[in-house]
Amino acid sequence: MLIVMHHHATAEQIDQVIDAVAAMGLKAEPIPGSLRTAIGVLGNQGYVDDSSIRTLPGVRETIHVSKPYKMVSRDFHPEPTIVDVSGVRFGDGLNPVVIAGPCSIETEEQMMIAAEQVKAAGAQMLRGGAFKPRTGPHSFQGLGVEGLKFLQQAGKASGLPVVTEVMRIEQLDVICEHADMLQVGARNMQNFDLLKEVGKTRHPVLLKRGMSATIEEFLAAAEYIVAEGNSQVVLCERGIRTFEKTTRNTLDLSVVPLISEMSHLPIIVDPSHATGKRSLVTAMSKAALVVGAHGLMIEVHPDPAKALCDGAQSLTGDGFAELMVDLNGLLGYLGYSV
Amino acid sequence: MLIVMHHHATAEQIDQVIDAVAAMGLKAEPIPGSLRTAIGVLGNQGYVDDSSIRTLPGVRETIHVSKPYKMVSRDFHPEPTIVDVSGVRFGDGLNPVVIAGPCSIETEEQMMIAAEQVKAAGAQMLRGGAFKPRTGPHSFQGLGVEGLKFLQQAGKASGLPVVTEVMRIEQLDVICEHADMLQVGARNMQNFDLLKEVGKTRHPVLLKRGMSATIEEFLAAAEYIVAEGNSQVVLCERGIRTFEKTTRNTLDLSVVPLISEMSHLPIIVDPSHATGKRSLVTAMSKAALVVGAHGLMIEVHPDPAKALCDGAQSLTGDGFAELMVDLNGLLGYLGYSV
Amino acid sequence: MLIVMHHHATAEQIDQVIDAVAAMGLKAEPIPGSLRTAIGVLGNQGYVDDSSIRTLPGVRETIHVSKPYKMVSRDFHPEPTIVDVSGVRFGDGLNPVVIAGPCSIETEEQMMIAAEQVKAAGAQMLRGGAFKPRTGPHSFQGLGVEGLKFLQQAGKASGLPVVTEVMRIEQLDVICEHADMLQVGARNMQNFDLLKEVGKTRHPVLLKRGMSATIEEFLAAAEYIVAEGNSQVVLCERGIRTFEKTTRNTLDLSVVPLISEMSHLPIIVDPSHATGKRSLVTAMSKAALVVGAHGLMIEVHPDPAKALCDGAQSLTGDGFAELMVDLNGLLGYLGYSV
Amino acid sequence: MLIVMHHHATAEQIDQVIDAVAAMGLKAEPIPGSLRTAIGVLGNQGYVDDSSIRTLPGVRETIHVSKPYKMVSRDFHPEPTIVDVSGVRFGDGLNPVVIAGPCSIETEEQMMIAAEQVKAAGAQMLRGGAFKPRTGPHSFQGLGVEGLKFLQQAGKASGLPVVTEVMRIEQLDVICEHADMLQVGARNMQNFDLLKEVGKTRHPVLLKRGMSATIEEFLAAAEYIVAEGNSQVVLCERGIRTFEKTTRNTLDLSVVPLISEMSHLPIIVDPSHATGKRSLVTAMSKAALVVGAHGLMIEVHPDPAKALCDGAQSLTGDGFAELMVDLNGLLGYLGYSV
Repeated sequence: MLIVMHHHATAEQIDQVIDAVAAMGLKAEPIPGSLRTAIGVLGNQGYVDDSSIRTLPGVRETIHVSKPYKMVSRDFHPEPTIVDVSGVRFGDGLNPVVIAGPCSIETEEQMMIAAEQVKAAGAQMLRGGAFKPRTGPHSFQGLGVEGLKFLQQAGKASGLPVVTEVMRIEQLDVICEHADMLQVGARNMQNFDLLKEVGKTRHPVLLKRGMSATIEEFLAAAEYIVAEGNSQVVLCERGIRTFEKTTRNTLDLSVVPLISEMSHLPIIVDPSHATGKRSLVTAMSKAALVVGAHGLMIEVHPDPAKALCDGAQSLTGDGFAELMVDLNGLLGYLGYSV
Repeated sequence: MLIVMHHHATAEQIDQVIDAVAAMGLKAEPIPGSLRTAIGVLGNQGYVDDSSIRTLPGVRETIHVSKPYKMVSRDFHPEPTIVDVSGVRFGDGLNPVVIAGPCSIETEEQMMIAAEQVKAAGAQMLRGGAFKPRTGPHSFQGLGVEGLKFLQQAGKASGLPVVTEVMRIEQLDVICEHADMLQVGARNMQNFDLLKEVGKTRHPVLLKRGMSATIEEFLAAAEYIVAEGNSQVVLCERGIRTFEKTTRNTLDLSVVPLISEMSHLPIIVDPSHATGKRSLVTAMSKAALVVGAHGLMIEVHPDPAKALCDGAQSLTGDGFAELMVDLNGLLGYLGYSV
Repeated sequence: MLIVMHHHATAEQIDQVIDAVAAMGLKAEPIPGSLRTAIGVLGNQGYVDDSSIRTLPGVRETIHVSKPYKMVSRDFHPEPTIVDVSGVRFGDGLNPVVIAGPCSIETEEQMMIAAEQVKAAGAQMLRGGAFKPRTGPHSFQGLGVEGLKFLQQAGKASGLPVVTEVMRIEQLDVICEHADMLQVGARNMQNFDLLKEVGKTRHPVLLKRGMSATIEEFLAAAEYIVAEGNSQVVLCERGIRTFEKTTRNTLDLSVVPLISEMSHLPIIVDPSHATGKRSLVTAMSKAALVVGAHGLMIEVHPDPAKALCDGAQSLTGDGFAELMVDLNGLLGYLGYSV
Repeated sequence: MLIVMHHHATAEQIDQVIDAVAAMGLKAEPIPGSLRTAIGVLGNQGYVDDSSIRTLPGVRETIHVSKPYKMVSRDFHPEPTIVDVSGVRFGDGLNPVVIAGPCSIETEEQMMIAAEQVKAAGAQMLRGGAFKPRTGPHSFQGLGVEGLKFLQQAGKASGLPVVTEVMRIEQLDVICEHADMLQVGARNMQNFDLLKEVGKTRHPVLLKRGMSATIEEFLAAAEYIVAEGNSQVVLCERGIRTFEKTTRNTLDLSVVPLISEMSHLPIIVDPSHATGKRSLVTAMSKAALVVGAHGLMIEVHPDPAKALCDGAQSLTGDGFAELMVDLNGLLGYLGYSV
């Protein structure tokens, strides 16, 4: 941490800061500059809480150098993490994984058809939501445990591992029983109790970025899971909230190469939720692969016009098959073995 | 809902939309304009899911008229809601309520001193966090149930009702036992399962605005609680996330008169978390009262320099006493009986 | 500036950074920590361009300590600046100044009535736009020089100094001739050539914050004007752009006490543009005074329903008179001599 | 436009709105729904100013259907515009154009080397700034007219058309004389007077998106230029301002396919300014081509470590040559004739 003093800070004020740092068991190193003095803080093994320093007289600001995460950082753990979901593997050097399926699980038949369609087109995993986070309480909230059964059954029939969202801790057991991977949604990215409990399972996790989460907060959320002993975490960029309202969110693709520099965890992209528009899904999927995403998560519905949730961003089975042809061509070009 | 067609949409495309609306059990009313046709959708009793319409050929966009909340809206329920927390009352026409206390409960002694200080200065409620949402897992996470006991004890000793944050559903019973009011924090504003369970209790609720929540989402979150039968909800503005980083968040004070137009629920302001800077708390507290807030939530710590959490935004006991003198003067000027 | 090295940076990489700093004529001071080395940069007299450092091998990030402004900072110039506009004075300790009038100058009669109304109600300055920045080219663009004449005439008749927006450098002469104060609008806050030319005049300036300008950029824009020799700058907060769309912008009131800590320039608030809603103007005006604004800028139109621009946020003459009664009561309470 | 009434609006209030619409020369069509009445406004030939309607009693909100642009919209002008810059052509179906060169023009030699490097690597146009918009007045402001001469000379020597930024109207003549294309920077996207004057020239224009401009505002800014008779406008996405600070801006790539749906103007991408990080430029450049950008604008400097501006995001000549090999491979894959 660096403590920046005001231009006119007195020697007494500087001494007071040095004493306060010492009281925290750390070492203060004053750096007198031509305009002002700064004070380096040494000896910390991680993030320093600066609350008690920031408001001392003469202090202009404190600047953090350590980050609130360490286990997920590339700096301390250079080797890439490979996440294995019932044989499907995410990570550096591996073929990107395509997860596809409907936003909500609606009926047994819908799931069986969807699974068949996405499998035939080449998807490696099946998605479907049984517990749905909806903005208002009067919208369809998901089928619950019955939906989980349809999902599991469709996964088995098609041979695809399945992922589904967990919204509360009590659901963990039943979801772990029916699904191969746990999804933590954007709205729960800072539901820290859920993160801790997910970290205590040994199920692979798909952690979506919160809609206004900084990269630092996103990695700190992953750190919550890893700190409990579960290192099998795949990150997912799904668009962030900005002033722009023509798209549902703003897909932040630069986060993919950037997080790959900063962390050893795999990162995938969800272009369906990010854009909210079917017509943009193909373009943004290809772009995600080109910037190095380790996978994609794409909404596919046998009949989007009748979907109970997010039909406007869902591809049809045929649309998805066309997309996969495009993506496979691109993967071949990018040097993957398709 | 209004469906806006493209300038060059054909008569067939318009008919197809009309049919799709009819298939939803609603009535379509075409409004042919000079540049394009729009189609009004009639007969809905609430928010309409437009997924199946938005992507029909010839449709440019759909525009929602109904909102995803109704029970909390002033439009359908003009009378103000009064929320009663063990005798302390929030709402239109009542004296604003000041809630004060430390961010985290740290020790029994700290809570007893804090309670005494805020009571002496005139606060009507005591706050303190036993379960803490912290960005990173390596920060202090709160004392848990032991902390709840210190809080309850300090509340009893001072005669102040107490409020504390609930982070997971399993904590609800123990918190209801020890606290007079449940707080749902900003990070959990869209933790819909938690909202539903909170709605099933009959405890008053303090619902904080999510850090990037729109007003519509904020009210829809409150609707989740009210829809379960718990109408005792106080809203709390605590700053939103913007590009500006000099303050912790950007306090959106215009939301206070605006929500009072749109909803019958009381709304209070937390200037401590909104600004993150002790030196701004007094000014923003007074501004909140002037714009009509039904209360304030202010962080006070007997010794902020030693606080385990958010010391930089906490007032000392003396600082809080000075603030209360200021606020009481202002309340007198504003016509409240102080 | 502080240069933060990667955890695994080598001694050679650290030496290379030290050499690069030396090549800039500055001194490098390594601060070896337990997790990583940081390098303080000493000897600079202002903001350091870090482009050449940031991408050296082993560098994680650079952190600026100096700001891109100095003349406008309180740190280097503690005494408050008083800005005098033909006898009306803005600044610390003085009565807040109310500027009022229509968004656009439309007719001679409209300006004469508006001036009379705002003068009678107690405003100290008159506003009106002759050159209008409109989002689209098909909206009313202002009366131009003819409008300036109506404004000047109305100012003289009422005895109120006048302020109007300058949109291009060539307009400076004619505006200086007709108006007492130059306004630089939000959209031109980083039109640096305009700022420089405005700085070469000796006319007082009202500088509005850009719609997504940070405080640092806002003060740096003021520095452009002051650096040319014109210290008569009043800052104006007019709302920033966020994800919230219910209000036109989000009024950032905490910027008022914060800028008063950081800079010696006066700062006023424009609640009309910030909210875009007439019903919020009174509440936000009072809040602005309470947080210490040195003035207000309020839109008033004799007949808002017929206004060519921004009628929805304009007060009527009567509405403004009521507001001024409210504000004068509040100013009296706040200890100003009204 | 659609006018949405409150649930409890009276028949008199509805009639008053109908009369107000009629007074604007338009037709009002009431649409009585089950929860509230909406009123369609018919007969307008473009964007309607709703100021006088929005605040009538009983009105909840007004919803715009027409946009503040028409000439640049695909809806009214389906054929793509081809922009020709001294023989280099941008637009649908054509090879993407790569513009490269330094941020600032610094010396004659620097420009000659840069031009040679980018030409050799395959760029089709040369960029360089003679007039620089810098956040603070104490940074390097550009060489001015002398710089223009170096740029023109380097362009001639290499056979590349050149583009440079115009910051004030008086510079238009001299820039038109020395450069093939005018750039309007992000900070001037809503400098409407500059847009109009640029529209009066017959020089091709590169219009950068403002840092917090919506797509609607971006297209409306282009409409200002086209409305003056200059249809040769290329749009440029260069990142938008969000809460995320790890990158300089957030590159919004979904805007490329979206604007191609909404407008017939070409759109290119500037990954250098968008990310501010050299290590992200290659990935984001490829992604831009994959989503259909009509070109790229890339910063290249012979010696980035000594650049006077933005060195951290500039590629070296060698780095650019490598990038071009990558891009040409990708273009071949995408079906362009390389």
